[in-house]
Amino acid sequence: MSDASFHGVFPYLVSPVDSEGNIASKVLRRLVDHLVRAGVHGLTPLGSTGEFSYLNWSQRRKVVEVVLEANGGRVPVVPAVAATATADAVRQAREFEAMGVDGIVAIMEAHTPVPESGTVDFFTRVAQAVSHPVVLYTNPNVQRGDLTLRAIEELAKVPNIRYLKDVSGNTGRLLSIMNRVGDRIKVFSASSHIPLAVMLIGGVGWMAGPACLIPEHSVRLYEFAVAKKWDEAVTLQRALWSVNEIFVKYPYAACIKAGLELQGFPVGAPLPPQAPLTGEAREEVRTALQGVGAL
Amino acid sequence: MSDASFHGVFPYLVSPVDSEGNIASKVLRRLVDHLVRAGVHGLTPLGSTGEFSYLNWSQRRKVVEVVLEANGGRVPVVPAVAATATADAVRQAREFEAMGVDGIVAIMEAHTPVPESGTVDFFTRVAQAVSHPVVLYTNPNVQRGDLTLRAIEELAKVPNIRYLKDVSGNTGRLLSIMNRVGDRIKVFSASSHIPLAVMLIGGVGWMAGPACLIPEHSVRLYEFAVAKKWDEAVTLQRALWSVNEIFVKYPYAACIKAGLELQGFPVGAPLPPQAPLTGEAREEVRTALQGVGAL
Amino acid sequence: MSDASFHGVFPYLVSPVDSEGNIASKVLRRLVDHLVRAGVHGLTPLGSTGEFSYLNWSQRRKVVEVVLEANGGRVPVVPAVAATATADAVRQAREFEAMGVDGIVAIMEAHTPVPESGTVDFFTRVAQAVSHPVVLYTNPNVQRGDLTLRAIEELAKVPNIRYLKDVSGNTGRLLSIMNRVGDRIKVFSASSHIPLAVMLIGGVGWMAGPACLIPEHSVRLYEFAVAKKWDEAVTLQRALWSVNEIFVKYPYAACIKAGLELQGFPVGAPLPPQAPLTGEAREEVRTALQGVGAL
Amino acid sequence: MSDASFHGVFPYLVSPVDSEGNIASKVLRRLVDHLVRAGVHGLTPLGSTGEFSYLNWSQRRKVVEVVLEANGGRVPVVPAVAATATADAVRQAREFEAMGVDGIVAIMEAHTPVPESGTVDFFTRVAQAVSHPVVLYTNPNVQRGDLTLRAIEELAKVPNIRYLKDVSGNTGRLLSIMNRVGDRIKVFSASSHIPLAVMLIGGVGWMAGPACLIPEHSVRLYEFAVAKKWDEAVTLQRALWSVNEIFVKYPYAACIKAGLELQGFPVGAPLPPQAPLTGEAREEVRTALQGVGAL
Repeated sequence: MSDASFHGVFPYLVSPVDSEGNIASKVLRRLVDHLVRAGVHGLTPLGSTGEFSYLNWSQRRKVVEVVLEANGGRVPVVPAVAATATADAVRQAREFEAMGVDGIVAIMEAHTPVPESGTVDFFTRVAQAVSHPVVLYTNPNVQRGDLTLRAIEELAKVPNIRYLKDVSGNTGRLLSIMNRVGDRIKVFSASSHIPLAVMLIGGVGWMAGPACLIPEHSVRLYEFAVAKKWDEAVTLQRALWSVNEIFVKYPYAACIKAGLELQGFPVGAPLPPQAPLTGEAREEVRTALQGVGAL
Repeated sequence: MSDASFHGVFPYLVSPVDSEGNIASKVLRRLVDHLVRAGVHGLTPLGSTGEFSYLNWSQRRKVVEVVLEANGGRVPVVPAVAATATADAVRQAREFEAMGVDGIVAIMEAHTPVPESGTVDFFTRVAQAVSHPVVLYTNPNVQRGDLTLRAIEELAKVPNIRYLKDVSGNTGRLLSIMNRVGDRIKVFSASSHIPLAVMLIGGVGWMAGPACLIPEHSVRLYEFAVAKKWDEAVTLQRALWSVNEIFVKYPYAACIKAGLELQGFPVGAPLPPQAPLTGEAREEVRTALQGVGAL
Repeated sequence: MSDASFHGVFPYLVSPVDSEGNIASKVLRRLVDHLVRAGVHGLTPLGSTGEFSYLNWSQRRKVVEVVLEANGGRVPVVPAVAATATADAVRQAREFEAMGVDGIVAIMEAHTPVPESGTVDFFTRVAQAVSHPVVLYTNPNVQRGDLTLRAIEELAKVPNIRYLKDVSGNTGRLLSIMNRVGDRIKVFSASSHIPLAVMLIGGVGWMAGPACLIPEHSVRLYEFAVAKKWDEAVTLQRALWSVNEIFVKYPYAACIKAGLELQGFPVGAPLPPQAPLTGEAREEVRTALQGVGAL
Repeated sequence: MSDASFHGVFPYLVSPVDSEGNIASKVLRRLVDHLVRAGVHGLTPLGSTGEFSYLNWSQRRKVVEVVLEANGGRVPVVPAVAATATADAVRQAREFEAMGVDGIVAIMEAHTPVPESGTVDFFTRVAQAVSHPVVLYTNPNVQRGDLTLRAIEELAKVPNIRYLKDVSGNTGRLLSIMNRVGDRIKVFSASSHIPLAVMLIGGVGWMAGPACLIPEHSVRLYEFAVAKKWDEAVTLQRALWSVNEIFVKYPYAACIKAGLELQGFPVGAPLPPQAPLTGEAREEVRTALQGVGAL
C-alpha cells in the first residue's frame, strides 16, 4: 500500500469485544469487508470510536491483526498509537509496523499538561521509530493542552510526519496550519468539523466515526468535493449532517456501535463503565440513519 | 433602508473615545465614510470590537448618532443592544429604533447562567419592543451559556428575529441551525469562523471586526462567494486569514484600533483598564496588513 | 464609623425591586434593621446577592441611600462598586463616598481578560479616588481571570486597600495571601469557603449572602471562632452548612430572596431574565431554614 | 495491618525509574524506610505523584512489591488502582490484594465523561473484588466529571468503601460529604486542601505528595490537630504551606522528585515526555525546603 495515497474517507472502526474481553473477530472482519467494498479509502482502527483508552495492549494488537487480515491489502490500514509515556508509544508504533500497517495516527494522552518541548519530543520519537507515514492527532481534551502552531511547524520537519488530524472543532485553526505547513503536512478533517468545509480550504479527506455508518454517502461526498461540484456537495453534506449531530451528541463508541447493531453488525456494547445507547437515544440513531437511507 | 437586504460585509466599528470620555466624532465619521465607499453592505457599531461593555449609555447613543449621520442612509446601520437585565435591553432597543437604526444585534450579557426560559424571554421581549429586524447574537462566553438549538427554534417564531450571528467558533453548529430554521433565520459568520466556509454552507455574510481594516478585500471575497467562484475565493480567503489570526490572538478592540491608527485613522486606545497594543504586537498587525496590501 | 473595625459578619444584602424598577425601600429598611438588631457587624449592599449587574446606577444609588438611612450609623456600610471601565468604577466610588459609606468592595467586571497591569491600575485608581478603606474582591468568574499573588502584593502597598474577599473557593489561596500580605490586608471569607476554616487560618470574618437568612447563627459562629471555642464552632458550622449548600446550588439572589420571603420579608423575585425559585427548589430552602431553626 | 487504623499522614510515594524503564528498587527501599522511621502512618504508592498514568502494569507491580518488602508490615500500604475500564481496575485490585496490600485507593480514569450509573458500578465492582478497605479517589480532572454527593451516598453502602480522598480543592464539598456519610466514610485531605482545615471539620489525615519531603513536620502537624492544639497547629501549617505551594505550582512528580534529589535520594526524573524541574524551579524547591528546615 503506497503511503503516497492517504486521502479520502477513513472510517474510525469500532472495537467489538465480548463479555470475556475477547475481540469479536467475525463481525469485525465483516465490517471491514463491508466498508472496503463501499469504497472507503482507508481504515483507522483504535481511534476514540475504537475505544483505545479502554483496551489493553493485547486487545489492541488483536484488533489490528484482524483488520489487516480482513482488509487484505486493499486500502491503507492506519491504526492509532496512544500512550502517555513516550517509551510506550514508541513500542506500540514499532509493533504495529512489524505487523504490517501502512501508517499510524499518533496520539499523546496526558494526565496533566506536558511542556511543549516534551510534546514535540514525544511525536518526533514516535515518528523516528517507524518508516511509514505518521498522522499527528491534535486533541486538546485527550492531550490536556494543544499542539501550538509553533510545535506543528517544528514537527513538520520530521520527514515521515505527513498528515494531521485535528479534533479541536476550530476549522480556522486548520487554515492556519495549512498556511504554515500545507506543503509538508496534509490535513484530514474530524467529525468536529464540517468535512466539506475542510475540503474547500484544502483538506484531503476525513477520519471519522460516522463513516462506519454511512460509507457510501461519505465516499460520494468526497468525490463531489474533489470534482468541485460544490452545489451537489453542499446538498449532500446538509443531509448527512444529522448523522454527525448524533455522533457529537452521544459518546462516540456507543453511538456508532448502536448504529452498526441496527444495520445488522452485532458489535455489542462499549466496554464498561461506558454505557450502551438505549431507549430514546437509540431511536435517534435509527431516525438519523433512516433519514439518509442508511437503514 | 429596506431590511430585506441584510447580507454581505458588516464591519464591527470601533468606538473612538478621548481621554475625557467623549466620542471622537470626527474620526468615526471619516471611518464610516471610508468603509461605505469601500463597498461594505452594512455597519455594526457597539459590538465587542466597539467595546460596548466599556461604554455607558450616553456614550453608546452618541456612537450610534454619529454613525447614522455619517452613513446618511447609504447602508443599513445595525448597532448592538447589550444588557443583563431584560428591561434595560428593551429600553436600549426602543431608543435606538427612535434614533432611526435599521435593525439591532441583540446581546444578552450574564453574570451567571440564566435558565433557558429566561433567555428566550429576553430575546423575545427585545424583538417585540421594535419593528425592525433583530439579529440574535449567540456567544457562550458573554452569555455564560449558549442558546440551545431548541431555544433558537423557539425564537425563530418571533416574526422580526430574522438573523443570527454565532461566535462559538463551531461552524458545524451553524449547519445545525440552518438545517432547522434556515428558512426563517439567516446566518452571519463571525471572525471565529472562516467566513468562506460559512458562505459555502448557506451563510449570507459576516459581521466582523477585521472588515474595518480590510473592507475592500472583504467585499471582494463576498462577491467571489456569491458568484460561486470558489477557487478564487479560497485563494483570497487564505491570504486574508493572517488578518483574522491577529484579531483572534489579541483583544479585538486593541487590535482593530491599532490597525486603524496605522492606516491613518486616529481612533486612539481602548478604554482602560484595557491596554493598547504596543511593541511586537503592533508590528504583527503592521506585518499582517502589509501582507495583504492594506497598508 | 471607624474603619478600624471591619470584622465579623457582613451580610450581602438583596436588592428588592418592584415591577416598575423602583427599589422597594420599605422592606429593605426593615431587613437592614432586623440584621443590625441581630448583631451583624456590617452591611454589604450590591454584591452578587444584591444583583449589582442587573441594576442601573440610579437603582444602585437608591439601594445605598436606603441602607445608610436605615442603618443610621450603627454598623459600617460597605457597598460594592462594580464596573468594567476604570473611569466608571472611580466615579461610582466617589459618589458612594460622598453619600457617606464607610468603605467599598471593589469589583472589576471584565468582558475579556485584562492584562495584569490594567487590573492593578484599576484597583489602585479606585482606591486612590476615596479616603475610606477598600475591600479587594477577587472572583475569577466575574473578572475573567484572577488577581495573581504578585498583583495582590502590589496592591497591598496602596494605603487604603486594607481588606480582601476571595470568591475562588480555593481556601489554600487565602493562606498564600495571608502569608504574603497578612500584615497589611485582612481577609474575609466568602460562601465558597467554609467560614470557620478561614477563621482558623487567620480570617477576620465573612461577607456572605446566607448571613441575610441566619444572622444570629452567623454571629454566634463568629463569636465561637474569636473565642477559639473550636468544638462548639465546628458543631454549629456543620449544622449551618446546609444553608450554604442551597446558596451554592441555586443562583444567589434567587435563593436569598426566596428565603427572605419565607421569613416574612416581601423582597420579591430577582430581576428578569433571572428566575425566582419555585416548587422543589423553594421547598429545599424552606427545609434548610427549618433545619437550623431559622423559620 | 489492621484496616481500622487508616488515619494520619500517608505520603504519596514517587516511582523512581531508570532509563531502561526498570524500577530503581534501592532508592525506593531507602525512601520507604526513611518515611516509616519518620513516623508516617501509611504509604500510598502509585498516586499522581507516583506517576501511575506513565507506568505499565509490570512497573506498577514492581513498585508495590518493593514498597511492601521495605515496609515489612510496619504501616499500612495502600497503593492506587487506576484504570479506565472496569475489568482492568478489578484485575489490578485483585493482584494487589494477592500481593498483600492493606487497602487500595480506587481511581477511575476517563477518556470522556461516564454516566453516573457506570461510575457507581466501577467503584462498586472494584470494592467487591477485594476484602480490604477501599479509598474512593474523587478528582474531576482525572475522572472527567466528579462523584456527585448522591453517588457517594450510594457507594457508602458498599461495606469496604471506608475512606475518601477528594482532590477538588473545594473544602466545603468535604463538609457536605461528612454531613451525609461521615459515619461510614472517613475523609482524607489532599494537597489541594489545607490539611489542617480538613482536620478541623472532621478529617482523619491526608494523603499527599509533600509528605515525602517533610514527613516529620507532617506528623507533628497531625499530632497537634489530634490534640486540638490549634494555635501551634496553625503556626506550623502556615510555615509548611510554602512547600505545598511549590507542589501545586509545578507538576507533582517533577516537584517531589526534585526535592528528594536535593535531600539525597537519587530518584531521578519523571518519565518522558514529562520534564524534570530545572534552573529556577529547582531553586524554588530548595528555598522552600530550606525555609522549613527540611534541607
